[in-house]
Amino acid sequence: MSPLVSEIRHNPLLWLLALVPVVLVAQAFKPEAHTLLFVLSVAAIVPLAALLSRATESVAARTGDTIGGLLNATLGNLTELLIALAALRAGQYVLVKASIAGAIVTNALFMLGASFLLGGFSHRVQEYNRNTARLQAGLLFLATIAMLVPSVLAENDATRTTVAVTQTLSMGLSVLLIVTYGLGLLFSLKTHREFFASANHAESAEAKWPLTLALATLAGVTVLVAAVSEVFVESVQQAATALGMSPAFVGFIIVPLVGGAAEMVSAFSAARKDRLDLSVGIALGSAVQIALFVAPVIVLLSYVMVRRRWICSSGGARWR
Amino acid sequence: MSPLVSEIRHNPLLWLLALVPVVLVAQAFKPEAHTLLFVLSVAAIVPLAALLSRATESVAARTGDTIGGLLNATLGNLTELLIALAALRAGQYVLVKASIAGAIVTNALFMLGASFLLGGFSHRVQEYNRNTARLQAGLLFLATIAMLVPSVLAENDATRTTVAVTQTLSMGLSVLLIVTYGLGLLFSLKTHREFFASANHAESAEAKWPLTLALATLAGVTVLVAAVSEVFVESVQQAATALGMSPAFVGFIIVPLVGGAAEMVSAFSAARKDRLDLSVGIALGSAVQIALFVAPVIVLLSYVMVRRRWICSSGGARWR
Amino acid sequence: MSPLVSEIRHNPLLWLLALVPVVLVAQAFKPEAHTLLFVLSVAAIVPLAALLSRATESVAARTGDTIGGLLNATLGNLTELLIALAALRAGQYVLVKASIAGAIVTNALFMLGASFLLGGFSHRVQEYNRNTARLQAGLLFLATIAMLVPSVLAENDATRTTVAVTQTLSMGLSVLLIVTYGLGLLFSLKTHREFFASANHAESAEAKWPLTLALATLAGVTVLVAAVSEVFVESVQQAATALGMSPAFVGFIIVPLVGGAAEMVSAFSAARKDRLDLSVGIALGSAVQIALFVAPVIVLLSYVMVRRRWICSSGGARWR
Repeated sequence: MSPLVSEIRHNPLLWLLALVPVVLVAQAFKPEAHTLLFVLSVAAIVPLAALLSRATESVAARTGDTIGGLLNATLGNLTELLIALAALRAGQYVLVKASIAGAIVTNALFMLGASFLLGGFSHRVQEYNRNTARLQAGLLFLATIAMLVPSVLAENDATRTTVAVTQTLSMGLSVLLIVTYGLGLLFSLKTHREFFASANHAESAEAKWPLTLALATLAGVTVLVAAVSEVFVESVQQAATALGMSPAFVGFIIVPLVGGAAEMVSAFSAARKDRLDLSVGIALGSAVQIALFVAPVIVLLSYVMVRRRWICSSGGARWR
Repeated sequence: MSPLVSEIRHNPLLWLLALVPVVLVAQAFKPEAHTLLFVLSVAAIVPLAALLSRATESVAARTGDTIGGLLNATLGNLTELLIALAALRAGQYVLVKASIAGAIVTNALFMLGASFLLGGFSHRVQEYNRNTARLQAGLLFLATIAMLVPSVLAENDATRTTVAVTQTLSMGLSVLLIVTYGLGLLFSLKTHREFFASANHAESAEAKWPLTLALATLAGVTVLVAAVSEVFVESVQQAATALGMSPAFVGFIIVPLVGGAAEMVSAFSAARKDRLDLSVGIALGSAVQIALFVAPVIVLLSYVMVRRRWICSSGGARWR
Repeated sequence: MSPLVSEIRHNPLLWLLALVPVVLVAQAFKPEAHTLLFVLSVAAIVPLAALLSRATESVAARTGDTIGGLLNATLGNLTELLIALAALRAGQYVLVKASIAGAIVTNALFMLGASFLLGGFSHRVQEYNRNTARLQAGLLFLATIAMLVPSVLAENDATRTTVAVTQTLSMGLSVLLIVTYGLGLLFSLKTHREFFASANHAESAEAKWPLTLALATLAGVTVLVAAVSEVFVESVQQAATALGMSPAFVGFIIVPLVGGAAEMVSAFSAARKDRLDLSVGIALGSAVQIALFVAPVIVLLSYVMVRRRWICSSGGARWR
């Protein structure tokens, strides 16, 4: 237990963990204080997300390169996935879409750009592995095109395209993106890893946690993030109105900043230490993961959820 | 005659040539058996296309680099041109457009991608001449923009753009693309050939045919391809309906596969032998040729044909 | 005064300066001879623009690299700015838009392409500084996207986007582009100048003018260009109709050729002398300057002018 305690003691960001029980208690006793719950839950997700990515990395470091790489690649944006799932279950489709788009943009533009800026202040010229950046920019470009296809089709053939065609197309493209993501991982982590050498996350000099602690933290924190995300999603609509923000703004700006705060700290500090490879790897890697893994998973799950709800409720036309 | 016979004996694909007389006889005696004629003509075009590109290469090899390069560059996709002309004469405009678009996509995406995949199975890292790929990708990009221009204009200024403007624009862009194609050939085959060295098709180690045989084969097979294309185009509509395929599907998928089968065999075998330059040259070169030469020629011919028909028929508003 | 006189004596283009008083006199006595005034003013702007860029360069060469670079970067396309301002004041919005778009296209496509062509006739292979071309192509791409954003938004959300939103967006993007232009200058002229070494305009071997002469020429010619631009804009509409040209054609083709004639002469002559770096620097640099500096300044000034006019006139709905 001591590595976790020492980690919390040395990282002021993690002191916000104290807010987690406060949120859950407040939700139980004052469910109508939406603005308070919103602010508290946003503040509580920051340290949970940080702890989650720390635990994922520790498990990854202990389980060998292949399984570890896979774990990092699938659970690295677990916070974003859990928030989007909570919003999806609550029928907040605007929030889902905005948080996915916002996470990609925040990672690929804001985190990367700010890393270049911060790095450029202290170092005149910085180098990074071109292969990593090219592969990931290529994957992002592919995902962008895949995301545009359904809307372009819908625009051109409004009369001819039925909802069913769009559904089939969206599901097909989602599966294609996930498969491409898997092949990209295989290519960069396994078969041609020497081309992507220095973008390795495992370079981080942090003390490794024992496997049991890491797994327990991973499980426990996942449950806590899911619970706090529920509170967040329930309170967001009325709180956003009260604070003068639209749900799209909350999804596009607040959720990505909250979910990615810990990663930003790492990317910025790496850029300042002239380890720009690490910054590029974190920022682009995270954007690629959301575009080619989290977003398609959400699309696939949304159809599963919609179908189940359709069957359960006799009057399915109520929502949508 | 013996090189042709030995070629046929050693290449199982060419045994399908036996179907050519079968098609023509069947067309004469059973013109209403559309599905049978469709399947037979598709199967008969494959070996004819293979023979056509073999004969073109042989003539090219015998007539020196400049005339040979020009021949290869203009007759390399003669099959696609003949099929498109037959479809144009029959008024099957969907088939014409789909077969042109399908040929570009099949060459630039499927043939190139499958070459990379097949080459990647046996060789970890493969090299190819960047200059060739860049020049040809640049030409393809230019052609894509030229093809988009008329439709973008038509979309934005629907009320103001008359049919006459679109015609003039299409013809101007077609001439521009053909001139660009010619200048590209001049650049890569004549003035700056040393930059594009290893993409040379003439590297192929096949036995060369005597010029007389090659020319005779070229002429004879062209006539046969034209005849079989007629049968194909006449039968395609009803056969496609019977087989549950749309004309767009036939044009986009079947025609390019049939017309390019022989080239695909060459490209894939070159990729497996780690001669990726040859694969890239065949796949991209063929796509560029269709986009910058075959398609503009079809556009120009279509206006000639339409004008002639317009003059011949007093009721020109019947077709469109 | 002698360097100016000797310059005029040796440069036949500058003999057209004799037309400047002719234009102003003709305007005073025959204000209704639109076609004559149009032709005269077009012919008079050519030498004025040449003199203006010569004076700017001389001031720049005398005031040190930083201030000089800044002067060159802001006053390099002063002619285009003055013509666009005259057209804006006269409410000729089509002419404003066409001349901005035309200036970018003429510089980035025609001047650059013709430089490559002319250079290629006398030199088989020409080299140029990639960093300059990449930075400026990147800036141009950014400006293109920024210019597309308002129209894309207006297209998609026609009902929801009010004019106010588009105005705020346009002004925000304009400020952003000007800031980006400034940062680009800082990057390429100050902090990382060694990467952009040979694209330096100051390499030109022309005799330098004394500072006083250069400043006086700059001030005097600016006034003359402004006066002739007034004549040009007042006559353009009726003259264009008389000569069978649309205002869009005049703005897109005539204005850029007139305003950039002197720069084209320099770029083409540099390309022929195998100093392609200088050609690329002039052509792309000028396009970037118009896209990221002149165009945003015009957008910002147009709102200032519109607002003032709105306040002055009680019936503001008359124009727009």
